[in-house]
Amino acid sequence: MSEADDLKYIGTRPIRPDGVEKVTGRAEFGADQSMPGMVHGRVVRSPHAHARIRAIDASAALALPGVLAVVTADDFPDRSAFRFRRRAFVDNVIASEKVFYQGHPVAAVAATSIQAAEAAVDAVVVDYEELPYVTDALEAMREGAPVLHDDMRTQGAAEPSDEPTNIAQKNEITKGDITAGFAEADVVLERTFTTPMVHQGYIEPHACVGNITESGQASIWCCTQGHFDVRNMAAMVLGMDLGDVRVMASEIGGGFGGKTTVYLEPLAVKLSEKCGRPVKMVMTREEVFRATGPASGTINTIRVGAKTDGTITAMYGNLIYEAGAYPGSPLGAGSMCLFAPYDVDNIHIEGTEVVVNRPRVAAYRAPGAPQAMYAGESLIDELAEHLGLDPIELRLKNAAREGTHAAYGPRFGSIGLIACLEAAKAHPNYSRTLEQNQGRGVAVGFWFNGGNASSAEVHLSDSGMVQIVEGSPDIGGSRASMALMAAETLGIPYERIRVRVADTDSTGYCATTGGSRTTFATGMAVIQACEDVIAQLKARAAETWGVEPDQVEWSDGEAKPAPGVNVEAESLPLAELARNQNRTGGPISGRGSLTAQGPGPSFAVNLADIEIDPETGRSTVLSFTAIQDAGRAIHPDYVEGQLQGGAAQGIGWALNEEYIYDEGGVLDNPGFLDYRVPVCSDLPMIDTEIVEVPNTTHPYGVRGVGETPIVAPLAAVGNAVSRAIGKRVDELPLSPPRVLAAIEAE
Amino acid sequence: MSEADDLKYIGTRPIRPDGVEKVTGRAEFGADQSMPGMVHGRVVRSPHAHARIRAIDASAALALPGVLAVVTADDFPDRSAFRFRRRAFVDNVIASEKVFYQGHPVAAVAATSIQAAEAAVDAVVVDYEELPYVTDALEAMREGAPVLHDDMRTQGAAEPSDEPTNIAQKNEITKGDITAGFAEADVVLERTFTTPMVHQGYIEPHACVGNITESGQASIWCCTQGHFDVRNMAAMVLGMDLGDVRVMASEIGGGFGGKTTVYLEPLAVKLSEKCGRPVKMVMTREEVFRATGPASGTINTIRVGAKTDGTITAMYGNLIYEAGAYPGSPLGAGSMCLFAPYDVDNIHIEGTEVVVNRPRVAAYRAPGAPQAMYAGESLIDELAEHLGLDPIELRLKNAAREGTHAAYGPRFGSIGLIACLEAAKAHPNYSRTLEQNQGRGVAVGFWFNGGNASSAEVHLSDSGMVQIVEGSPDIGGSRASMALMAAETLGIPYERIRVRVADTDSTGYCATTGGSRTTFATGMAVIQACEDVIAQLKARAAETWGVEPDQVEWSDGEAKPAPGVNVEAESLPLAELARNQNRTGGPISGRGSLTAQGPGPSFAVNLADIEIDPETGRSTVLSFTAIQDAGRAIHPDYVEGQLQGGAAQGIGWALNEEYIYDEGGVLDNPGFLDYRVPVCSDLPMIDTEIVEVPNTTHPYGVRGVGETPIVAPLAAVGNAVSRAIGKRVDELPLSPPRVLAAIEAE
Repeated sequence: MSEADDLKYIGTRPIRPDGVEKVTGRAEFGADQSMPGMVHGRVVRSPHAHARIRAIDASAALALPGVLAVVTADDFPDRSAFRFRRRAFVDNVIASEKVFYQGHPVAAVAATSIQAAEAAVDAVVVDYEELPYVTDALEAMREGAPVLHDDMRTQGAAEPSDEPTNIAQKNEITKGDITAGFAEADVVLERTFTTPMVHQGYIEPHACVGNITESGQASIWCCTQGHFDVRNMAAMVLGMDLGDVRVMASEIGGGFGGKTTVYLEPLAVKLSEKCGRPVKMVMTREEVFRATGPASGTINTIRVGAKTDGTITAMYGNLIYEAGAYPGSPLGAGSMCLFAPYDVDNIHIEGTEVVVNRPRVAAYRAPGAPQAMYAGESLIDELAEHLGLDPIELRLKNAAREGTHAAYGPRFGSIGLIACLEAAKAHPNYSRTLEQNQGRGVAVGFWFNGGNASSAEVHLSDSGMVQIVEGSPDIGGSRASMALMAAETLGIPYERIRVRVADTDSTGYCATTGGSRTTFATGMAVIQACEDVIAQLKARAAETWGVEPDQVEWSDGEAKPAPGVNVEAESLPLAELARNQNRTGGPISGRGSLTAQGPGPSFAVNLADIEIDPETGRSTVLSFTAIQDAGRAIHPDYVEGQLQGGAAQGIGWALNEEYIYDEGGVLDNPGFLDYRVPVCSDLPMIDTEIVEVPNTTHPYGVRGVGETPIVAPLAAVGNAVSRAIGKRVDELPLSPPRVLAAIEAE
Repeated sequence: MSEADDLKYIGTRPIRPDGVEKVTGRAEFGADQSMPGMVHGRVVRSPHAHARIRAIDASAALALPGVLAVVTADDFPDRSAFRFRRRAFVDNVIASEKVFYQGHPVAAVAATSIQAAEAAVDAVVVDYEELPYVTDALEAMREGAPVLHDDMRTQGAAEPSDEPTNIAQKNEITKGDITAGFAEADVVLERTFTTPMVHQGYIEPHACVGNITESGQASIWCCTQGHFDVRNMAAMVLGMDLGDVRVMASEIGGGFGGKTTVYLEPLAVKLSEKCGRPVKMVMTREEVFRATGPASGTINTIRVGAKTDGTITAMYGNLIYEAGAYPGSPLGAGSMCLFAPYDVDNIHIEGTEVVVNRPRVAAYRAPGAPQAMYAGESLIDELAEHLGLDPIELRLKNAAREGTHAAYGPRFGSIGLIACLEAAKAHPNYSRTLEQNQGRGVAVGFWFNGGNASSAEVHLSDSGMVQIVEGSPDIGGSRASMALMAAETLGIPYERIRVRVADTDSTGYCATTGGSRTTFATGMAVIQACEDVIAQLKARAAETWGVEPDQVEWSDGEAKPAPGVNVEAESLPLAELARNQNRTGGPISGRGSLTAQGPGPSFAVNLADIEIDPETGRSTVLSFTAIQDAGRAIHPDYVEGQLQGGAAQGIGWALNEEYIYDEGGVLDNPGFLDYRVPVCSDLPMIDTEIVEVPNTTHPYGVRGVGETPIVAPLAAVGNAVSRAIGKRVDELPLSPPRVLAAIEAE
């Protein structure tokens, strides 16, 4: 690994390649694509939370002017022989026998105008048999509750039952002897925490253009975090070979995990097949809320045992995650993260995933971790208060470090939790005096980070400009990060590098941008590809000089003779080798690909100072401090942006956001007026501090940084509110009425 | 090299990947692209053949409703310091001080509709000072002729003059002693042949969409034979770095060499820069004729000396090629090809390139060769007639063969001329009895074929589908050829392979599709990339089996243990290795790139039977036989298509096509009604015969086949007409009035 002092480009803050276009409005997002002959598609959605589809009559819709096609589940490959989870995935795209949530797609229409398509949606007659529904996880587990799926069985259950159930999954993590651990404790605290279903709240609605030709070659333009996985999923739903589906990723107006699956894309392709035209589909905001993938609501019970000196002897968690209509909640990841910051011998975590008549959940930054760690970190704060200990000191006493055997499996390598805790302790925001009605919350965040498969190619133009081609949609500035790592590796300026996120036909496989894997894994593929280029540049220089390739070194963007090797020129710079490439053997391209191993876990410590208006229960965030180990910050601006964005979203989750269902199982607040995400005026400037404890498995020490920032804010805010009002709160969101009720409670 | 018998996929005739879309109309050509906010551009063109631009006033145009921008030469980088030939290139895209042909662009406009753009074109006021003009090469060389370029000097002149001249270039090829050669001859024949300026006649007019963002990133969608070279040329005209221009090649509705340069593309980008919108530009047919790049008209004098037994002792050629308004004629290539079929000791060729007030010529299939070889092969036929020899036997007696030292430089390797001549002699069409007024023409065609730089990448999807990515626009079925060579190399069916011609940002450099280089050179890059993939597949299999990679063999699409190596499984097929790739190390991609050496020259022999109506001079082509050495026909259908297409174009060139200028230097026939290309009813079914003399430098023996087919038809037709009417003809086209005049001449 290079030492930070040696780095010339990594750690600088150049403008991102897509920056200007995004400011001027020239960047092309999901809804910005059009094709000759293109028509418009819309979705017919269930008005019921749970119903059987008796019949669909599209004849009136098809008779309307401009209406070209209607598709239903019958137009897709027969799914009756699919295993349950595969069928569930397809059913969520277009329902077959039953609908499981209000907004569930039952048909899609294509017409020559949006207006005609909307008229067609209204004209499709669906004959429903309404069924009893359940939107609450605890109720869904009760005997006699309406059962969603007759053929679903509990995964991971100790004693599998053949009875229908809404319990999709049971899981368990065990380390040491929890009974013995609690027996050792001087004090045991337990509390149950509730978090609501929330939405990622990305600004850009889902949008795509689907097209398929008569020879069966499909193309999809869409906003997604992973166009390769859109290809895989669309091909699966459509019953096509991967090689017959080409996906192009547009720029993306936010995803946060919510754009890692397919909703419209297979419908657009199927409509295109039926009407022989490209089909554009764009969701309304209401559709985004009702029928995409929010984050699980949870009910999590935590019990912690400790000695009076703060030594934690046992930690227990019981997690209940809503999955929405089909299994797929991040219960597993939540369980993994829950007690990961603590080097504690005795840990036991039990988890339950429950299906309810709500939209199927999807990933949302560090999926599952904020909910679980909100619970865990709230109880740790309560423990600190109970024991009269500084909450940072309590954590330092029990902090995971290099060598700690995490309950979820691995033995940690070099990690930055202690460095972050020390940074928090030393931060000026931790020593500012609090006034009346103000509280300071501390919480730790954690995400294990992803590796997974990535590829990249690098091409050298005659002008010496270097073109990187890769397949990871750029959400948080990854094109800039790739260019910086390439600049560092090749030894040429950032400005001489261009990065293209190519379509699925034109570059090697990259797994979805998510799990904080991209700068780490795709970055390694880019570095590999650059090293491949350097090897060729050295060989060309060697041939020019009449020496062996191993007699040539590469540094500062130039081939140089190795010490002791005598050649005429002192060096051959990349630009010169590039200019002559076609005369010295041909165009120079490099490739890299890997399934990345060893992503470094990233820890964060957040501090929140909050003031509560005792008359209204309204919170004001006075300051918020996000401290996180980035391993190495390739582009510090975008690391800070991740920290600030995660804080903003976490504060919203803690204070205001929630899915509210009415009595009919209908989402009551499917819009940004009623579903309240924080806006600028709700937030202070988020203070950030990047800690750098390099990840030894990455050439430049990178750890993923995108997930962890959203993990700690829930508990940091909750702990601040608890301390401000002098009472522990345990239910999110901490909206003014709820805080006021807590203040006024006995 | 593999033996033909071993080949499983090469030589079969599957449907081309783009076939269905082209039949159903779903393929996207140059004019099929649209972008959000796109507006329309049109070109203001000179009405004069030669004039000085005093001033351009765009104010009235800009005041029209919907008009967004007008660009002139002043908007482009200052070209005054450019060397002449570079400035000439830029001036042809947009004139600066002078216009040199009717149709020469002087300005371009962008407006919100085509109608508004056309109104703006009419409203741009250009103040011209008309100058004397010259459209004829012989006149242009005369003393006192109007001189086009004050600063042009003759390239290659023995005694360079500092006087302004219209002679752009002099060249010379010498082998042996021409004087001694003629002295040895029993008979010397000499004749001067004239060929008109003709157009390639591609069906699709030039079209593009240019866009540039505020950060200076340009994109161009266009129909072209070489989007990498469009990038290079557009960047040069615009003064941009290659890395800031991305070019996407649409499907192409014919190019034939005419789509190897830029006309609209830099204008569209510059208009886009000025108006902040993407700009689409589509030429009318009239613009295509007036202002793109036709083929040189020529005046070629040939002298041949021979013994009475037919042994040729000396060959002399004097070639005069029109360049159009700026240098750039294919005089050099014409000179190279002229006597290439003959193993003759004494050869001398002199060439002259002349600028005239016509559009600048561009390449047209085997650029320069048809004109020169029309002259050479006509005189050879006359010699055969004169000596009473069979024209094939005369050629066999003097034919170039392996080891022949061609006058233009190389010593031929394995070539197929004699095999083609023998095939012609044996062909049934050569022994059919001719009736009155019928003649049979024989001619040889030759093209040296191109190599040049190519790249390719190959990606393996989890489904086992193989994706080829390359940068050679597919004109004649090259995607099918690439897939066949990949199928053969990998040992998997053609149907499991997809080929994508990627944009310039997403794949390695490929030189323009032209010169019959693509199946040869890009094919080798694809084979290299497949071999890279096979090496990785073998390594994965080796790891799975716990053996060394060199203990694994690859055949029939499967990894197999080498003889004597004991492993559990008998084989690991590609599909299985593909499915597991991300679990066994990561995605598998391969790359290949090279500057291809050793393209094999391709010879053809054509036979034409023609009947002349003695009352009208009208020709009827009774039969036409195209025999050509393809080295190895990867996809025989598309080789046959090349032979048939070249014959059709060559017959048109011989019989009807010509640029006709009126007294004002204005092209009189800029449309398909007056410029008469052959249609189906003008032609018999063209008979083809593929000869296969493998090119030893290509793994599968490929020679280029796209150029040679157009070389022989001019002389084959001319010789048939000469023999039908019993008089030698020496001026093309052999339109009815001209043939009638020849018949009626004394």
